[in-house]
Amino acid sequence: MGPSLRVALCQLNTTVGDLEGNLARILKALETAEGQGAQLAVFPELAITGYPPEDLLLKSGFVDDALETLEKVVAATAGCAAMVGFVDRDGEGKLYNAAALCAGGTRVAVYRKHRLPNYSVFDEARYFEPGPGRAGVVDLARTRVGVAVCEDVWWPDGPLAGMPAAGAEVVVVLNASPYYARRADDREQVLEARAAEAGCPLIFVNQVGGQDELIFDGASRAVGADGQVRIRLPQFTESIVTVDVADLDEPAPLPPEGPTLTSEVYEALVLGTGDYARKNGFTDVVFGLSGGIDSSLVACVAADALGPEHVHAVALPSRYTADESNDYAAELAQNLGIDLRSIPIEPAYTAMLAMLGEPAEMEVGGVPHGLVTTADTAMSARAKSQIARENLQGRIRSALVWALNNKFNWLVLVCGNKSELAVGYTTAYGIDMAGGFAPIKDVWKTEIYALARERNRRAGKEVIPEAVIQRPPTAELRPGQLDQDSLPPYEVLDPILEGFVEEDRTATELIEDGHDAATVGRIVRMVDSAEWKRRQAPPGVRVSPKAFGRDRRMPITNKYRG
Amino acid sequence: MGPSLRVALCQLNTTVGDLEGNLARILKALETAEGQGAQLAVFPELAITGYPPEDLLLKSGFVDDALETLEKVVAATAGCAAMVGFVDRDGEGKLYNAAALCAGGTRVAVYRKHRLPNYSVFDEARYFEPGPGRAGVVDLARTRVGVAVCEDVWWPDGPLAGMPAAGAEVVVVLNASPYYARRADDREQVLEARAAEAGCPLIFVNQVGGQDELIFDGASRAVGADGQVRIRLPQFTESIVTVDVADLDEPAPLPPEGPTLTSEVYEALVLGTGDYARKNGFTDVVFGLSGGIDSSLVACVAADALGPEHVHAVALPSRYTADESNDYAAELAQNLGIDLRSIPIEPAYTAMLAMLGEPAEMEVGGVPHGLVTTADTAMSARAKSQIARENLQGRIRSALVWALNNKFNWLVLVCGNKSELAVGYTTAYGIDMAGGFAPIKDVWKTEIYALARERNRRAGKEVIPEAVIQRPPTAELRPGQLDQDSLPPYEVLDPILEGFVEEDRTATELIEDGHDAATVGRIVRMVDSAEWKRRQAPPGVRVSPKAFGRDRRMPITNKYRG
Repeated sequence: MGPSLRVALCQLNTTVGDLEGNLARILKALETAEGQGAQLAVFPELAITGYPPEDLLLKSGFVDDALETLEKVVAATAGCAAMVGFVDRDGEGKLYNAAALCAGGTRVAVYRKHRLPNYSVFDEARYFEPGPGRAGVVDLARTRVGVAVCEDVWWPDGPLAGMPAAGAEVVVVLNASPYYARRADDREQVLEARAAEAGCPLIFVNQVGGQDELIFDGASRAVGADGQVRIRLPQFTESIVTVDVADLDEPAPLPPEGPTLTSEVYEALVLGTGDYARKNGFTDVVFGLSGGIDSSLVACVAADALGPEHVHAVALPSRYTADESNDYAAELAQNLGIDLRSIPIEPAYTAMLAMLGEPAEMEVGGVPHGLVTTADTAMSARAKSQIARENLQGRIRSALVWALNNKFNWLVLVCGNKSELAVGYTTAYGIDMAGGFAPIKDVWKTEIYALARERNRRAGKEVIPEAVIQRPPTAELRPGQLDQDSLPPYEVLDPILEGFVEEDRTATELIEDGHDAATVGRIVRMVDSAEWKRRQAPPGVRVSPKAFGRDRRMPITNKYRG
Repeated sequence: MGPSLRVALCQLNTTVGDLEGNLARILKALETAEGQGAQLAVFPELAITGYPPEDLLLKSGFVDDALETLEKVVAATAGCAAMVGFVDRDGEGKLYNAAALCAGGTRVAVYRKHRLPNYSVFDEARYFEPGPGRAGVVDLARTRVGVAVCEDVWWPDGPLAGMPAAGAEVVVVLNASPYYARRADDREQVLEARAAEAGCPLIFVNQVGGQDELIFDGASRAVGADGQVRIRLPQFTESIVTVDVADLDEPAPLPPEGPTLTSEVYEALVLGTGDYARKNGFTDVVFGLSGGIDSSLVACVAADALGPEHVHAVALPSRYTADESNDYAAELAQNLGIDLRSIPIEPAYTAMLAMLGEPAEMEVGGVPHGLVTTADTAMSARAKSQIARENLQGRIRSALVWALNNKFNWLVLVCGNKSELAVGYTTAYGIDMAGGFAPIKDVWKTEIYALARERNRRAGKEVIPEAVIQRPPTAELRPGQLDQDSLPPYEVLDPILEGFVEEDRTATELIEDGHDAATVGRIVRMVDSAEWKRRQAPPGVRVSPKAFGRDRRMPITNKYRG
């Protein structure tokens, strides 16, 4: 006879700093678990504080309050026990990322995380001391339960290697493992290896929900001692599932999952956008709807995240806006059932040109191809004026949308994508950057199309008009302007950007990889020159292995040109 | 007879990523040192790459290039030897923050930094492995030279404790130690303790210059074996000074330095602002000059940093601007000899009010005291409209200044101070926030006054008109508006903010400290609610022990209210 323990996987959506709210969520889950006959409810890493609490941890008063909150969980474990992630503090005031086993109304045991990630989006060495790295094992209901926290299981030869010697019959792992595309698949491979190393079933419980740039996708798992996945909790939603450890090796292993990558990323955008709004007290969002594909996709994400009745789109046409742009915006708004208003920007544009001593009309043609910044001192005065005129339009649009934010407390979304943000093909403080949240900032332009089609596929109809997907990208800031006047085709651009930004290739290496030398040189220079602008961009949903923001920390002042 | 070594302290202003430029600077200093008869030239920490290189270090191609650059320093040491900070890499690709002794044209020895700071503005655990922590000692010119890197000497019982046993006759320390107010005094105390621990003279060489938010103040030191300071290099400027180690205990110790704190901070602002502009390719700056004290101070800092002929101020009066505001702006511009132009914002303001369906005139009075954000859902529609109207003015001003940036490639400065930024008494994307650099963002409002007087004292006359220093702070966004309508007096506000922001006190603790409970509750809420706005603020000069930016990493989504 194997171990008799019945375990509830509590995949919860906590909020950073929300000690009362997180406590309420934990207590409710504990009740549900008990109702399902569980003897042990397992919660995510740092479930008390939410993850990552960042510099809240430097406030000793916050840690006091969080420790008091843990005591309230302890007090509620007369029935079902709880393994809960919390911030532990020793007598010297040092902090640990820890898991407490609370049972019978007392804190029975504490395990301190050994491996502290301090790369990518993680800064755990800033806050925590590492635990000793011994296998953490405790007895509960005649079962020897091993415990580990997140990064502890991410690499071989960690604390799980000691589990067989320690006699563990099941290992529970508390996690706050952030999402990026295909992450759940990667994790399964890791869990399979670790379960084999531990020599017993493994239960992996992950946080779910958005926190600023990060989203946590849940996708908790129960794995048999044979290293095969037996139970999958859903991605991107809260879930509580109870399992008998003894049964874990019984059913046949599950076949690999088959969701498409695009579908997964779309769900991530919806959860990340919705959670940012909700957790920051917004019910409604507002943004400029241009009739292009980026803002059309953002409209869909927002409608799916918050409900179409909470989505306010604003068309902001100028003298350069094509009639079909307005038509497409109207069509999309109708298809989605969202609010649409139109504020033509001409009066402000005319007024400000005059205030700047600029001619009301300007014959275009002064802007050489490839120029999107006025930092180039070789640029003609005429070309610089043209750029000024274009940026002015973006900034007038932004000021109008923000006036709606002030009047109605709607969260302002911006529609810039990762390709634009990378090369700085955006207006600082303009309609494409100046917002509270940027849903698609980590999505390459070439991926935007697949997401738009995915949304139409889900609806079973053309919510985003096919013509929007087909038309060549344009900012419509001067007559006949196309993105491709200033940038290589996105099919050429995005792979270079992916190498430079996500894979940390240098220009030299990208040229060795076979990309065109002149194009690489120009693009890399644009990316570096736009760092100051990205630093002022709002957060957005991280869906790639390396997003702009806390993930890629490049200096602004940076003369490296390699 | 003591050690015979003659050492040059090379306090250089390197730039991050500028491998060629830093190399040229190092080679020139080496020549100077040799000319001064030095046998060893000591350079700052990571002098090859500049400090901090941040995620450039994740590019293996960058590390390759930096290692090649080091070889060029090595090749230049046929005469004077060099102890130079560089990024070392082992066979497994792991990186170390290291010092190389280059002598006789070869790399003689390498010391790897043991203590890696990973708190405050430091992230060294993200990039580096720690060295073994043994005392690093090497023989040069019949002298036993100990070596350490920055944080190694910051705490007792570090690598310097082993120096007596290792027989060190002098210890050289390579540093990139960032500035904040009174930092040089703190360092002297530390150096005195470490020299005593090492039992021999200690030579401390620090980087100088601005790098994004950070500035390094130089202030290199030579300390005798008795722990007393013998030589001080200047703060905030490059300097090369050569000393005989044997002589270091000879002269009488120097008395403590007596510069005023205000004078020191002013110099820091000038260096930080000037270096940001220069290192990012700007010769000129532009900003809105209101006739208030903040923008007046920024005008002085900019003129001192770049020369008055490179400073462009723009008066942007509205219907609410008092005549004396325009007069003060003109007076200041004339006193400083800077360019001033005036662009009244009325035409754009009138146009945009009409576009938004707002009345051209609005009887004020709808905004309750204390409200500076529309996030309060209890606020009346009328009050929200009033806020929208005020923010609109700030955004129009910003769009105009940015048009000048586009046309002339002038770096846009913003004039927001730390108190305003803390409570969010600023307009996102408006004239007080939307810029490339924010010179006074880490200066509390109550400190601004002392800095303004300091600048006048230096000039020996009223450069900033005394009336500007005396007038009550106002944003002039509605008739008769004063900062104090929305905020407590700055004398009350700043100490609360200092406790909450710089000392990580909680609201509860601040009330226990004796601050008014209602005021604390309101202020703390405002600070947390403005985190999203601060995240989009430009960098500025860090002059406090905890600045907004990379120093204080609070979550935006944060429901902690303690």
